[in-house]
Amino acid sequence: MPPARSQAKKQADNKKIRYGVVGLGHIAQVAVLPAFSHAENSELAALISDDPQKLERLGRRYKVKERYSYDQFDACLSSGVVDAVYIALPNHLHREYTERAARAGVHVLCEKPMAVTEEDCLAMIRAAEENRVKLMVAYRLHFEEANLKAIELVQGGRLGEPRLFNSVFTMQVKQGDIRLNPRELGGGPLYDIGVYCINAVRNLYGAEPMEVVAFSANNGDPRFEQCEETTSAILRFPGRERLASFTCSFNGADVSTFRVVGTEGELVMDPAYEYAGELKQWVTIKGRTRERTFPKRDQFTRADQFLRMHTDRCRT
Amino acid sequence: MPPARSQAKKQADNKKIRYGVVGLGHIAQVAVLPAFSHAENSELAALISDDPQKLERLGRRYKVKERYSYDQFDACLSSGVVDAVYIALPNHLHREYTERAARAGVHVLCEKPMAVTEEDCLAMIRAAEENRVKLMVAYRLHFEEANLKAIELVQGGRLGEPRLFNSVFTMQVKQGDIRLNPRELGGGPLYDIGVYCINAVRNLYGAEPMEVVAFSANNGDPRFEQCEETTSAILRFPGRERLASFTCSFNGADVSTFRVVGTEGELVMDPAYEYAGELKQWVTIKGRTRERTFPKRDQFTRADQFLRMHTDRCRT
Repeated sequence: MPPARSQAKKQADNKKIRYGVVGLGHIAQVAVLPAFSHAENSELAALISDDPQKLERLGRRYKVKERYSYDQFDACLSSGVVDAVYIALPNHLHREYTERAARAGVHVLCEKPMAVTEEDCLAMIRAAEENRVKLMVAYRLHFEEANLKAIELVQGGRLGEPRLFNSVFTMQVKQGDIRLNPRELGGGPLYDIGVYCINAVRNLYGAEPMEVVAFSANNGDPRFEQCEETTSAILRFPGRERLASFTCSFNGADVSTFRVVGTEGELVMDPAYEYAGELKQWVTIKGRTRERTFPKRDQFTRADQFLRMHTDRCRT
Repeated sequence: MPPARSQAKKQADNKKIRYGVVGLGHIAQVAVLPAFSHAENSELAALISDDPQKLERLGRRYKVKERYSYDQFDACLSSGVVDAVYIALPNHLHREYTERAARAGVHVLCEKPMAVTEEDCLAMIRAAEENRVKLMVAYRLHFEEANLKAIELVQGGRLGEPRLFNSVFTMQVKQGDIRLNPRELGGGPLYDIGVYCINAVRNLYGAEPMEVVAFSANNGDPRFEQCEETTSAILRFPGRERLASFTCSFNGADVSTFRVVGTEGELVMDPAYEYAGELKQWVTIKGRTRERTFPKRDQFTRADQFLRMHTDRCRT
């Protein structure tokens, strides 16, 4: 490679993608904003929120001068101060803000779940394609080591033929939490934590489900007036008919686990989806169990990795 | 209590119920026949099989002179040599032999599953009622200590309000095994091992399910030409809408586990349903886990207990 071109490439690599973070709630404060300090290819360039106090406080903490209200979102997009937005808004707003960013030619990294309906998701993909911007869902376990090792092990045939997946993900969510929003606004355990079970099996099987049945339940607690308390689902995958089942709930003690049973062995992750502590993996083959602990890591700093991946994609 | 009456009672207690064991396959040989040596209230009085060699071999081993072919079953029933029969026949024959025994005034202890269809089960119950004989399903975990402790703990409120049950029970079943019989003959994992999951949650919740959805799957292996390979189901229980889900399979590595998640804690049994080794229980409340091991016991000797219970019922 001629030195001149190499130099040009290096310069391009050094040009960081400037992100505007839209929505400054819990996930933005504990995860997204801190992650930028580790990001090699991205930088925090703007904050967008309707809460002037949050804008002031977080703007000062992260040294971000560009601050916008939601009304000023389009002005922010057209001002040229951001190349991409990280959407950390309530779930039902993901579509609208993605479409607006796309129309302005701004790339989108969107918190999970992608949106509230399949129609919304398809509209977001269409908007990104039509406006030639990148759209990616921010999902922390795409880059988490224990989960990646599990995928490698299952797809590598260590358990024989993987035949079933089973997962339980439960926690207690308190009254007033945004996750207890009405279902049409994306509230409830399926949107918030069920996505981890679904993504886990999609990645472990390397396939997409073709059929699903589910029950939702509600014990009548006032917390669950507007969304379900618990959802159990069974998914059927194509080909040699693998099954998967999972249960997610906002009214259970903390449980976060999945298992894959193959014709010759079993893999258990417990906890499987947490970010506050270590993750554990048990692999049992021919009656012998091997335990492996994955020390706690800041999975949100891994935002760096998906920001970088996003950045790389932006440059393709 | 006057001494005379006490004496009479003691004599009645000493009168053992004479059992005929019908069907001398695997379960009869490894479990039912050996259990009689520990039974205080029951004795092995007759063997019924179409295999003359089994009749000869097992008759000699267990010193049973009364031996009958299936054709001679009614003759056996009317001969007065048995008070009760233990039906260890293939699943689709449970109804017929129960009805024949009931009509002859002979009590029935029937291997699980009770029968192949709800219609069959109802007919068996009807036959027992009409002929005033006792009918009981032989289910080894009704009397198993770890399972009983789990029920006590869950119903005692230690986990808060129990909200969900989840179970996986899988094993490899080899070509030629009677459990791979066509589904209409009671083959497949649901009839053979799914019943453990269903009974576990019925007993843990102390309730009967009111709604169910299920998927069965088949990977195309020749073993599963006539029955399903795997079944996953979700059950909804009444009242405060508790859910339960389970997966059972004849094409997975050995897994035998259930968990109950309550609003304040979690109980895990693993293994939960085995009889070949110890059973383990983990109870986690407020993040603290207590592990308890239940040493291996001969659960089939517990047949003694259900024989006794049956006996007691026969005397009511």
